Amino acid sequence: MEAYHKPDHATLQTLKDIANRLRISSIKATTAAGSGHPSSCCSMAEIMSVLFFHVMKYKPEDPRNPSNDRFVLSKGHAAPVLYAAWAEAGFLKENELLTLRKLDSILEGHPVPKQPFVDVATGSLGQGLGAACGMAYTGKYFDKASYRVYCVLGDGEVSEGSVWEAMAFASYYKLDNLVAILDINRLGQSEPTPLQHKMEVYKSRCEAFGWNAIVVDGHSVEELCKAFYPCKKKPLAVIAKTFKGHGILDISDKESWHGKPLSKDIAEKAIKNLENEIQSNKKLKPQYPVEDAPSVDICNITMDPPTYKCGDKIATRKAYGTALVKLGNANARVIAMDGDTKNSTFSELFKKSHPKRYIECFIAEQNMVSVAVGCATRNRTIAFASTFATFFSRAYDQIRMAAISESNINLCGSHCGVSIGEDGPSQMGLEDLAMFRAIPTATVFYPSDAVSTENAVRLAAQTKGICFIRTSRPENEVLYENNEHFQIGQAKVVLKNTNDEITLIGAGVTLHEALAAAKALQKEQINVRVIDPFTIKPLDAKTIRNNAIETGKNILTVEDHYYEGGIGEAVMAAVSDEPGIAVHRLAVSCVPRSGKPVELLKLFKIDKDAIVDTVKRILNRV
Amino acid sequence: MEAYHKPDHATLQTLKDIANRLRISSIKATTAAGSGHPSSCCSMAEIMSVLFFHVMKYKPEDPRNPSNDRFVLSKGHAAPVLYAAWAEAGFLKENELLTLRKLDSILEGHPVPKQPFVDVATGSLGQGLGAACGMAYTGKYFDKASYRVYCVLGDGEVSEGSVWEAMAFASYYKLDNLVAILDINRLGQSEPTPLQHKMEVYKSRCEAFGWNAIVVDGHSVEELCKAFYPCKKKPLAVIAKTFKGHGILDISDKESWHGKPLSKDIAEKAIKNLENEIQSNKKLKPQYPVEDAPSVDICNITMDPPTYKCGDKIATRKAYGTALVKLGNANARVIAMDGDTKNSTFSELFKKSHPKRYIECFIAEQNMVSVAVGCATRNRTIAFASTFATFFSRAYDQIRMAAISESNINLCGSHCGVSIGEDGPSQMGLEDLAMFRAIPTATVFYPSDAVSTENAVRLAAQTKGICFIRTSRPENEVLYENNEHFQIGQAKVVLKNTNDEITLIGAGVTLHEALAAAKALQKEQINVRVIDPFTIKPLDAKTIRNNAIETGKNILTVEDHYYEGGIGEAVMAAVSDEPGIAVHRLAVSCVPRSGKPVELLKLFKIDKDAIVDTVKRILNRV
Repeated sequence: MEAYHKPDHATLQTLKDIANRLRISSIKATTAAGSGHPSSCCSMAEIMSVLFFHVMKYKPEDPRNPSNDRFVLSKGHAAPVLYAAWAEAGFLKENELLTLRKLDSILEGHPVPKQPFVDVATGSLGQGLGAACGMAYTGKYFDKASYRVYCVLGDGEVSEGSVWEAMAFASYYKLDNLVAILDINRLGQSEPTPLQHKMEVYKSRCEAFGWNAIVVDGHSVEELCKAFYPCKKKPLAVIAKTFKGHGILDISDKESWHGKPLSKDIAEKAIKNLENEIQSNKKLKPQYPVEDAPSVDICNITMDPPTYKCGDKIATRKAYGTALVKLGNANARVIAMDGDTKNSTFSELFKKSHPKRYIECFIAEQNMVSVAVGCATRNRTIAFASTFATFFSRAYDQIRMAAISESNINLCGSHCGVSIGEDGPSQMGLEDLAMFRAIPTATVFYPSDAVSTENAVRLAAQTKGICFIRTSRPENEVLYENNEHFQIGQAKVVLKNTNDEITLIGAGVTLHEALAAAKALQKEQINVRVIDPFTIKPLDAKTIRNNAIETGKNILTVEDHYYEGGIGEAVMAAVSDEPGIAVHRLAVSCVPRSGKPVELLKLFKIDKDAIVDTVKRILNRV
Repeated sequence: MEAYHKPDHATLQTLKDIANRLRISSIKATTAAGSGHPSSCCSMAEIMSVLFFHVMKYKPEDPRNPSNDRFVLSKGHAAPVLYAAWAEAGFLKENELLTLRKLDSILEGHPVPKQPFVDVATGSLGQGLGAACGMAYTGKYFDKASYRVYCVLGDGEVSEGSVWEAMAFASYYKLDNLVAILDINRLGQSEPTPLQHKMEVYKSRCEAFGWNAIVVDGHSVEELCKAFYPCKKKPLAVIAKTFKGHGILDISDKESWHGKPLSKDIAEKAIKNLENEIQSNKKLKPQYPVEDAPSVDICNITMDPPTYKCGDKIATRKAYGTALVKLGNANARVIAMDGDTKNSTFSELFKKSHPKRYIECFIAEQNMVSVAVGCATRNRTIAFASTFATFFSRAYDQIRMAAISESNINLCGSHCGVSIGEDGPSQMGLEDLAMFRAIPTATVFYPSDAVSTENAVRLAAQTKGICFIRTSRPENEVLYENNEHFQIGQAKVVLKNTNDEITLIGAGVTLHEALAAAKALQKEQINVRVIDPFTIKPLDAKTIRNNAIETGKNILTVEDHYYEGGIGEAVMAAVSDEPGIAVHRLAVSCVPRSGKPVELLKLFKIDKDAIVDTVKRILNRV
């Protein structure tokens, strides 16, 4: 950035006036809505004024321009002041602000990307900075562009560990294009924050985490204007001492005013006072950005077919890494990241082939997911993040918010189920299907061999929403020819006879157990059909239903997952409109333990023998 | 603690010998198992030796004695060195160590509480310190006893934000009975840790978070012995510079040795070298603790019946707070905590009545759950933690691990579903049932009025495992008389006629919508039955099945939750063994938005009108 020049008096006064206009708009909108957080808006009015009308470079008429500076309102409950700023900038109309929180308005209670000036939804606290890190990393290392990233955090949310994961990430990767503004307004929702106005403690924490940190009076536009001049190689934290409700005499710095609109009386009085402070209606126009963000194409993905051989034994986790390398060859905007498990998930293969497009996120899964979301905003990258399936439970809130953010990230969870063996239950993904199925925008892939894994990776890259790929640790046989065509929501009938008496549905290791069981059953003159669902969400209801009807309306699902929310329940839901189909299930019913993979599949009754026994019991052939 | 006296030479040598014996045991066990993390054990051998045989006070023959010092191995993958220490202390037999990771051994790959010396399962990194905080808080403020809490963390896991949530919590509450030992062995799983051996950075981070921090040579028993003398009013961080695999020449400080057992050859050589270092077989006995932990009774809970009036309008979230106050009156060991939402979840009522038993955890849900788990260890307290239902997604990994820990914590999630209204999707719990149902030890309560909420709170306190209570924001009518008897797994038939044509199942707001729909349908001569499941897990399959059979085998579930993993799928699973029951479902099918509660119930088709329409369609009465 350029050297600091103190703005002239008129500019400073206009910035003050803008701040008060933002306050007035925030008060009006929340009072009209009858709910919302005016006090949280008022503490950051000067911050918004200085950022939006003095510091940030962007085209107000084109909020998603790839060269614009980014802005993330991590304290999403202050949404009205964000909307007010975009009205002040001319993108929204003043009277639109009064539609806040209404059913037919885009101005929801918290920021969401149906607002063109919002890249990531916020409202679950402590998540903005991680997404901002992803944007800043993308700006610095992938786009190599001059845009900068600004993120405003509340002091309450600084208690979230995810903030400190992001702080560590930002300094490790020297994100000197990233600025965090901490709005230290002393008061949380239900009581003062733990550090209240201990500004030096905030400063020492930011500095210890490798940031350049500066404490300012957050209600002084002069101090704020001066603060945004970072030194090189470090991210900048502007720690602003503010007062919640500042500018509204009756509530400023008072407890019990979180998330409460002003009554009409108090609002009118407050607005009058604020109007008296305003000296002119002068506007300020933001500086336009340097348009140096490259144009990118994340749609152009053509990959050669896989090159496996039926019968070869390959773990799907390894096939994931191999596929990711090919995907990286196919499109220069494919990036990958991992949480220090890359030698287990095999994302290390991608790192080896495309080192500049791999981001090591270390053991901080929450931040990894947020970084992925940030990297994928404005369609700058196709992001793949991997760790053990069960460790995505660490980032479930981030994944949930990614769906609300309309993000297109791809997540790969390895080491699913008891089939990982000796490491024991803490490392076993047994709730990941339940978790991801309950994400409304999710596609859930559960490939059972190397060929289908490669297809899953390609399809994930081409598919909007959250894509989750569940991979397994054991080596299993390649089942499909390399030219087999895969599609989301299309199951494969992998074994079929004319007189099948039941349809078995397995995936990953349990598909192989089902095939082994089919072989054993055939020796006892029991024919069974076997289906590989490929995607658990959406599930191919039609194929499952039709095959069930052809096989005596009997289905048996087998899964290396807990009973709840997994394949069995998904299948039940899929066939619920066809009367009389009986869905039987085998799954893991309690917290498992250490042991060899084969021992555990047997102990938890999801192996070949359990399938054989269950089929015979269902068919009364015991 | 007493003033520091340097141990005599013989003691120091014995501590060194013990460290090397622990190394040998760790190597032997992992080589015998063919898997495991010997290098991670070796970096902390001196730490374990000094802690277990010089610093900590405990009865080795009674590992769960309430007055013992606590020990938490947050870096759970170093389990073999923990087992080795308990063998050295005499609690385990040497040859038992060789059963590591076997199917019939209690010595699993990561620590689990089937080992009597383990209070909390570890293995998902970054969780130990939060649990240790709960133990230390309990020791200092509830037990007012002299036991201390020691927690060993790896350097890789220090990237987890949850660690910094715990650090902030510990200093805020002045937990000077808590000691964290950071084993800084420089190497993560797949590459060096971000800070490698930057000991001063670790120190400044710990100090910035309010800890007394000291850097030591982690392989010097002298330095370690000296380190454990904390100052008052602050928790102590002993930051130990170590080398991964220290003591094994071939692998010490080398990459690519994470999670790999030594081959027999390398193991033999290493053991020989270590044996040469050992000067004697002398043992050290730990000091016994002062037995000043009070005896407590967490079983004695008798509560007067509720005092509501049918038809009064009370939000279940408020009934939760009221019930918690009564529970607190009934048993002095009931404690509550919240993440700065106490004025929304109504846990503030408990704080007002029992201020000394309320722990404000601020906006750090991961740590809150870990603190609850820590407080509940050794049956010291009955812990209730509350926040918005959806924010428990932030702590899903902690909840998952709490189940593996066999913990008995109680969690209350308020603000479920779209019925919260204007705040929008970021604040709506729509995946919490899916999430908690997939926790194997969970009981999931979903009370629909104030009387059942009070019963849920009482039953949760009396029930083992993870109990989750889902409460709602809107005020709804009291449905039950105060003397109504509630039981886990027992549904209530709240509306019944002789000629009912369908069974409606709702909970919370949707039960009230179902009742309203029933009224409307009755006017059109359509009788329906209405069931309140009370607990979603376990679900009262028998009542649901029997009523479905009596009502034309038709069920319609209505829930303020996403389709996946919620009530509908739970009901399908419950009736799957009864052929021909058709389960129809109404639930939220996509990311919702802001609006008034009634508008949103209508928009997402889970209100009275949607139920009426759907019932008529199912029964062909359109």
